[in-house]
Amino acid sequence: MTTAAVRRTATKLADGRDFFYFDDNPEYVSGAKTRRLDDPRPLGDRFVDATGAPVAAPQMRRDPLTGDWIPMATHRMNRTFLPPADANPLAPARPGASYSDGEIPDTDYDVVVFENRFPSLMATPTTPLGSEPEPIEGEELFLAAPAAGRCEVICFSPTLEQNLAGVGVQRMRTVIEAWADRTRELSALPGIKQVFCFENHGADIGVTLHHPHGQIYAYPYITPKTRSMLDQAVPYRERTGRNLHADVLEAELRSGRRIIAQSEHWVLYVPVASRWPLEMHLAPKRTVADLAQLTDDEKADLAPLYLKMLQAGNRFFVDPDGSPIEVNYIAGWHQAPVGEGREDLRLHLQYFSFLRSPGKLKYLAGSESSMWAWVSDTAPEKIADRLREVYKDEVE
Amino acid sequence: MTTAAVRRTATKLADGRDFFYFDDNPEYVSGAKTRRLDDPRPLGDRFVDATGAPVAAPQMRRDPLTGDWIPMATHRMNRTFLPPADANPLAPARPGASYSDGEIPDTDYDVVVFENRFPSLMATPTTPLGSEPEPIEGEELFLAAPAAGRCEVICFSPTLEQNLAGVGVQRMRTVIEAWADRTRELSALPGIKQVFCFENHGADIGVTLHHPHGQIYAYPYITPKTRSMLDQAVPYRERTGRNLHADVLEAELRSGRRIIAQSEHWVLYVPVASRWPLEMHLAPKRTVADLAQLTDDEKADLAPLYLKMLQAGNRFFVDPDGSPIEVNYIAGWHQAPVGEGREDLRLHLQYFSFLRSPGKLKYLAGSESSMWAWVSDTAPEKIADRLREVYKDEVE
Repeated sequence: MTTAAVRRTATKLADGRDFFYFDDNPEYVSGAKTRRLDDPRPLGDRFVDATGAPVAAPQMRRDPLTGDWIPMATHRMNRTFLPPADANPLAPARPGASYSDGEIPDTDYDVVVFENRFPSLMATPTTPLGSEPEPIEGEELFLAAPAAGRCEVICFSPTLEQNLAGVGVQRMRTVIEAWADRTRELSALPGIKQVFCFENHGADIGVTLHHPHGQIYAYPYITPKTRSMLDQAVPYRERTGRNLHADVLEAELRSGRRIIAQSEHWVLYVPVASRWPLEMHLAPKRTVADLAQLTDDEKADLAPLYLKMLQAGNRFFVDPDGSPIEVNYIAGWHQAPVGEGREDLRLHLQYFSFLRSPGKLKYLAGSESSMWAWVSDTAPEKIADRLREVYKDEVE
Repeated sequence: MTTAAVRRTATKLADGRDFFYFDDNPEYVSGAKTRRLDDPRPLGDRFVDATGAPVAAPQMRRDPLTGDWIPMATHRMNRTFLPPADANPLAPARPGASYSDGEIPDTDYDVVVFENRFPSLMATPTTPLGSEPEPIEGEELFLAAPAAGRCEVICFSPTLEQNLAGVGVQRMRTVIEAWADRTRELSALPGIKQVFCFENHGADIGVTLHHPHGQIYAYPYITPKTRSMLDQAVPYRERTGRNLHADVLEAELRSGRRIIAQSEHWVLYVPVASRWPLEMHLAPKRTVADLAQLTDDEKADLAPLYLKMLQAGNRFFVDPDGSPIEVNYIAGWHQAPVGEGREDLRLHLQYFSFLRSPGKLKYLAGSESSMWAWVSDTAPEKIADRLREVYKDEVE
C-alpha cells in the first residue's frame, strides 16, 4: 500500500473555474468509468459584471503599522450561508434532475476540488496573479494591490452526513493526494507565496456550509503567522546552522512528556506552549517543506494517523452523561513558503478547538484580539494526558 | 476645565490586593467625606493555599516557533461567570447589610480600580516581578517563567445598568485619570514591559461579568501586536529618522477620506487597512508614548470625544425596525512599551466590534486563527461613511 490508487480528472465549471475529481473508486481509477465533465449551468463569464464591465480582484491593503496585508472581500457578504440540506451546493448533482444550483457536475464523487465561487483571493484578466502593490491616495505609506491569489474548496465526501473523521483510510489517503496535488500546482502560479490547506469544522466557529469540506488558500503574501515563525527560524539557522522546527520536534521527542502517538514517519503531540483548550501538532519525522514533498510511504502512513487524531479530538470532551462530544475544530497545514524562507520552515499540521469545556467556547477578548497576546486556561501536559487517555491505536 | 478634580484614595483588600478609589464627587474631592477602607471579609492570605503551601504565579512559556509568551492560567477555570445581579461582585457594598462577596468596601463609589482576584498575570513572594526565564525539561528551546505581571479591574460606574458610553463627561474624565495613574504606576514595577488598558463590552464576546468595567494588564513581555508594530517602526526610524505612527496619522489627515471627527488635540478615524467590520482609531495629535504623558488639556479634550466615539458605535447598526443596536466591542489603548521601543510607538486607541451585521458575528476561522491572516468583509471607506452619518458632535 505504498502507491495511492488515485485518478485525477481536471475540468472547468460553466463560469471557467477549475474543477478536479480525485477518484479512488476502482472503476474510475482504471478508466472503466469516466466523470461527467460538462456543467450545464448558465453561469456566464465571472470576469464580467452585470453591466458588461470587467470584474477586478478584491483589493488588499498593507497595514502600515504592522506590515500585514488585509484582503477586503466586500463582495463576499452575499455568500451562501447554511443553506437547507436540499440546497446543498457541495452535494453531487441529483440523478435525473435538471441541474440545480450545485457545484458538482457528476451524480457522485469521491473527492473533488474546485475554485471557490465566493473567493477572498482571486485573479482576473485585469488584476492578474503577480500584480505589484502601488500607493493609494498619493501616500507612499498606503500600499494596495489586487488580492490576486486563489481560494479552492475541497469536498471530503459526497455525503452530507459523512465527516472527515469517518471517511476511512483509503478516502483519507485520497484527500492527502488532493492536498499534495493542489499544493504543488498552486505553488507554481505567479506571485503565490504560500499555500494553506485547512478545515474549519463546526457551525459554532462560523462554517457557512455543513457539507464536509475544507479549503485551500494560495496567498500572494507571507501570512503573519509564517512571518512570525520565520522571524525566529531565520536567525536561529544563521546562528546555529540548524532548522529550528526540526530541533523543536527533536526536543519534544527527547522530553516525551506531550507525545500522544508516533507512527513510522509521523509524530502527534501537544506543543510545549500550546494556546488552545485542545491543541495537537502532527509533524513528519523527516524535514520536508510541504505536502508535495511527501513520499508515498509518508502519505500512506499519514492517512490512518490523521483519522486517529480527529477521532481522539472527538473523545476529548464528554457531556454530563459521559457521551463523547464531537468538537468543532480548525486543522491547518503550515507549509514552507514558496520562495524566501523555504528552507527555514517545515511541514506540520496544527489542530485546535475553541471549545473550553462542553458548551463553553474560548472567546478571544481584549488581550488576544487587540494585543495578540494569548492566555491559555489549561496546561499542555493536561491536554496531552487526556489525549493519551482517549487516543486509540486503531481507526474507528 | 483643564485640571481634573479627582481624588485618589489607596487601600488594600482583605487578602492584600491593592484597591484605589478615584472620586470626582465634590464631597470626596474636598475631603469632607472619606471612603471606607476596611474590607471585613475573611479572605485569608492569597499567597498561601489551603494546605499552607506558598502559591506560585501562573507559569508562562515561550512558544519556540514564534517567540510569543503564553501565560497558562490554569486556576482561572473557576472564575465567576455571569453571576445573577444580586451576586454582582463589582457592585458597591449593600448599606447596612453584612459584607457580602463583593469586592467594594464602600456603599457607593465613582470609579474604582483593584487587583483582579482571578488574574492571568500575577506576582507572589516566591515568584516575584522580574523573575527570569529558565529552560524546562532540560531543553534550551523550552523556556518558562512565572507570569509575573498584574491584572487590574476598573469599574466605570457603581450602577450595573450604566454603560461607559453613558457615564457623562465628568466621569469619563475620571476614568481617563485612573487609566493614566495606573499606567504610570504599573510601568514603574520591576519587569513590566507594557501596560494595556482595555474594555471588553458585551456578553457575546465572552465577558464574564455584566457590571460596566474594564481591565488593565501589566505584561512582563512585549505583546505580539506591539512586537509586530516595532518590527515596522524601528527600521522606519532607522531609515528616515521619523516616527512611523506619527507619519501614518499625518497621511490619514492629508487624505482625510476616513476621518470621522477631530477635536483640538485628538483625531478619530478608520485606519486605511482596518480589519474588523466596525473599527475606529483614536489618536492624539501630539506624539506621546502613553496615557501618563497626556497633559490636563489633552485629557479634558479626550473625555467627550471618547464618549461620542462609543455612542457613534452604538448607532452604526440598526435592527430591521430601524432602532440602533448597542454593539459589543473591544476598546484598548496601544501604549509604547516601558523600555525597548519606547520612542517608536505612539499612544492610540483601537476600537472594534465582532458584529458583521445585526445578529451576525465575524468568526475567526482558519485563515485568521491559524495563519493570523485577516480577511475583511468590508471596506474602510464604507465604515467611515457610515460612522460620519451617525456621529454626533455632542455627548448624549
